[in-house]
Amino acid sequence: MIEANLDDQTGEGLGYVMDVLLEAGAYDVFYTPIQMKKNRPATKLTVLGNVAEKRALTQLILKETSTIGVRYQTWHRTIMKRHFITVETPYGAVQLKVATYDGVTKQTPEYADCARLAQQFHIPLRTVYQAATVAAAQLNEED
Amino acid sequence: MIEANLDDQTGEGLGYVMDVLLEAGAYDVFYTPIQMKKNRPATKLTVLGNVAEKRALTQLILKETSTIGVRYQTWHRTIMKRHFITVETPYGAVQLKVATYDGVTKQTPEYADCARLAQQFHIPLRTVYQAATVAAAQLNEED
Amino acid sequence: MIEANLDDQTGEGLGYVMDVLLEAGAYDVFYTPIQMKKNRPATKLTVLGNVAEKRALTQLILKETSTIGVRYQTWHRTIMKRHFITVETPYGAVQLKVATYDGVTKQTPEYADCARLAQQFHIPLRTVYQAATVAAAQLNEED
Amino acid sequence: MIEANLDDQTGEGLGYVMDVLLEAGAYDVFYTPIQMKKNRPATKLTVLGNVAEKRALTQLILKETSTIGVRYQTWHRTIMKRHFITVETPYGAVQLKVATYDGVTKQTPEYADCARLAQQFHIPLRTVYQAATVAAAQLNEED
Amino acid sequence: MIEANLDDQTGEGLGYVMDVLLEAGAYDVFYTPIQMKKNRPATKLTVLGNVAEKRALTQLILKETSTIGVRYQTWHRTIMKRHFITVETPYGAVQLKVATYDGVTKQTPEYADCARLAQQFHIPLRTVYQAATVAAAQLNEED
Amino acid sequence: MIEANLDDQTGEGLGYVMDVLLEAGAYDVFYTPIQMKKNRPATKLTVLGNVAEKRALTQLILKETSTIGVRYQTWHRTIMKRHFITVETPYGAVQLKVATYDGVTKQTPEYADCARLAQQFHIPLRTVYQAATVAAAQLNEED
Repeated sequence: MIEANLDDQTGEGLGYVMDVLLEAGAYDVFYTPIQMKKNRPATKLTVLGNVAEKRALTQLILKETSTIGVRYQTWHRTIMKRHFITVETPYGAVQLKVATYDGVTKQTPEYADCARLAQQFHIPLRTVYQAATVAAAQLNEED
Repeated sequence: MIEANLDDQTGEGLGYVMDVLLEAGAYDVFYTPIQMKKNRPATKLTVLGNVAEKRALTQLILKETSTIGVRYQTWHRTIMKRHFITVETPYGAVQLKVATYDGVTKQTPEYADCARLAQQFHIPLRTVYQAATVAAAQLNEED
Repeated sequence: MIEANLDDQTGEGLGYVMDVLLEAGAYDVFYTPIQMKKNRPATKLTVLGNVAEKRALTQLILKETSTIGVRYQTWHRTIMKRHFITVETPYGAVQLKVATYDGVTKQTPEYADCARLAQQFHIPLRTVYQAATVAAAQLNEED
Repeated sequence: MIEANLDDQTGEGLGYVMDVLLEAGAYDVFYTPIQMKKNRPATKLTVLGNVAEKRALTQLILKETSTIGVRYQTWHRTIMKRHFITVETPYGAVQLKVATYDGVTKQTPEYADCARLAQQFHIPLRTVYQAATVAAAQLNEED
Repeated sequence: MIEANLDDQTGEGLGYVMDVLLEAGAYDVFYTPIQMKKNRPATKLTVLGNVAEKRALTQLILKETSTIGVRYQTWHRTIMKRHFITVETPYGAVQLKVATYDGVTKQTPEYADCARLAQQFHIPLRTVYQAATVAAAQLNEED
Repeated sequence: MIEANLDDQTGEGLGYVMDVLLEAGAYDVFYTPIQMKKNRPATKLTVLGNVAEKRALTQLILKETSTIGVRYQTWHRTIMKRHFITVETPYGAVQLKVATYDGVTKQTPEYADCARLAQQFHIPLRTVYQAATVAAAQLNEED
């Protein structure tokens, strides 16, 4: 995890930086609103990435943002095992991510599929998620 | 109430603007963290001021910040009646704001007095507040 | 809508106030993190209520919080028509709120029912929601 | 201004809704983090739009989000007059928005131009902004 | 410390999860508003707990929330020594937590006691705190 | 990095604490809005400081704030090398911080200089920054 506090960069610039960091291979990038000295509303940048990418991500943050320093912390992670299944909804096929770990199993419709179908059929995103949830339940019953 | 969404100004610049607006006579100025389009972490500026100051405050906001527009809304207000009393604490005199309205009475030690004494005696701010609270209670008992 | 900026009340006190205001009949109460002058992290209290309750809610806010003033604004509202239906899930009956307006219809499982069943069966809240979503879909098909 | 408090919609769903509302012609859409009853972290949706679009935007919000109600408030606005000029930087042409109002004049490099050139030349966004600022200063000197 | 970023769970669901984690023995649970990619307003879950509970808390987070991964970090802690004393206020007995460490001593009225008395006597929470503060000061004087 | 969650201290008190900690030699102090149990809006205090100052900063946090415990984490840091240059603007001299690291070079006008000139000439802070940016560009050209 790499972090930097940014009080001399615009929101416009920060929106740009998020894209640059994700394209460069960061696992995840997120912003937290913070309050710094001298009445400054500011933003904390957090970048999650592979340890092997540490130098490249640091260089990128120092190049693209206004900060003159970053800080690092190693976190350990537990990630559920994932595979994908496809279900048929009235609007078309939707992939579901099936995640399993230590007796826990979760199925989540893939956002990209649902968003695409919602736009194509001019229906709410919620409707596609619900259709995928119903289709997944029927699939599980048949098993 | 005057508001503007700011996504192209730095936190450093916003800290400066708060001071400028308060010196110009705004009743109150505060910042709210918001999230705007294109992944931009941004800040909403809210300025409370006298209706008669509307044009001057607008001019100042447009001059000092990056926004190209502001929006206005009139809010009605209920403000408690206030007077000040002074109590003696072991660290010196502290003013209390006494606020009354519709059967409600509240006493609050003045921040500036408490902060000054805390620094002078190298004691926590909390200790001065508590001393002022105790002194106020004794005063009320004597009445 | 009644609002007040609070920079001299603790979070502990604010948690208490939310309960008091909801019990007194406010439609809704929510908190927004704001940043006030002198480097103060603060909280904006917003209370939504019936216009007829304005004086009672004002009195309550002034009594229970540290603020010495509140501000008011009238907002107009559009509220969807609602009725409730009950569906049977493998875990028991769950009410669904059916909301309709201008060609839009939405069904939402009631939180209280789902939370109760999740606790009773030691299953995730998500599982009960999904079961209710599936049951609602089957009901709609039968219509 | 149309607002709704959302405590039963995912962040994923909210990212989608922002796009839908902006495509439908809303002037601006932004999110504010709020805290609702029952320990719920929630999001306030604010949509700024033309009064003539009120019904269409309401219908869209009720259709696409989980809320069962929205609230409205009319704000007055002051918007600076704007025109665009083009300056030549070492990286190519950049448009500047020139905004004027009541004796105030501001020039801001257009984000889209700067972002495009930054990506094309593999340089920080900041470098393009600075180049545009310098080019604009030279232009003003020549006038 | 266990953390997870949640962009596909509702606020309603997060309110439920806080209760579940606290009941399961987490020391503390808190939410931070964050902003994730694709314009998603999201929530960071932070759980503080005993290292021995790490697996159980992980299992619970993966089961009850929508995340497919969590991250861990060990923090060292300094906790003040605590004992409780009871003071008599005009409204009844109130416990005070007395915390000491390295020359620092603090007394804090217990929230649960103050809240109970405030509700019983229909007085502001602040009034009970102040009464407890005054009673504690008298106790200290008598020592 | 030292952190503490504060739900029983006022914003007023937190503004005071920030000053106290910075004066005591903390590198940086910032606040993050968080949401704690029992519907409490709260604030996370983060203090960055030298490891050698750990005990002194801990003592100060426990003395000046309401928390009864703090937690620690060591972060590694990469800080750019810095030196200062002075440029002449139409409003007077402004220092620029020049930061370099691994092929990256950034120049930033010093806030204190810009703020002082903006106030002296009654011009926006932005105008001084832009003048300093232009002056720096001319300096670089002459090199």
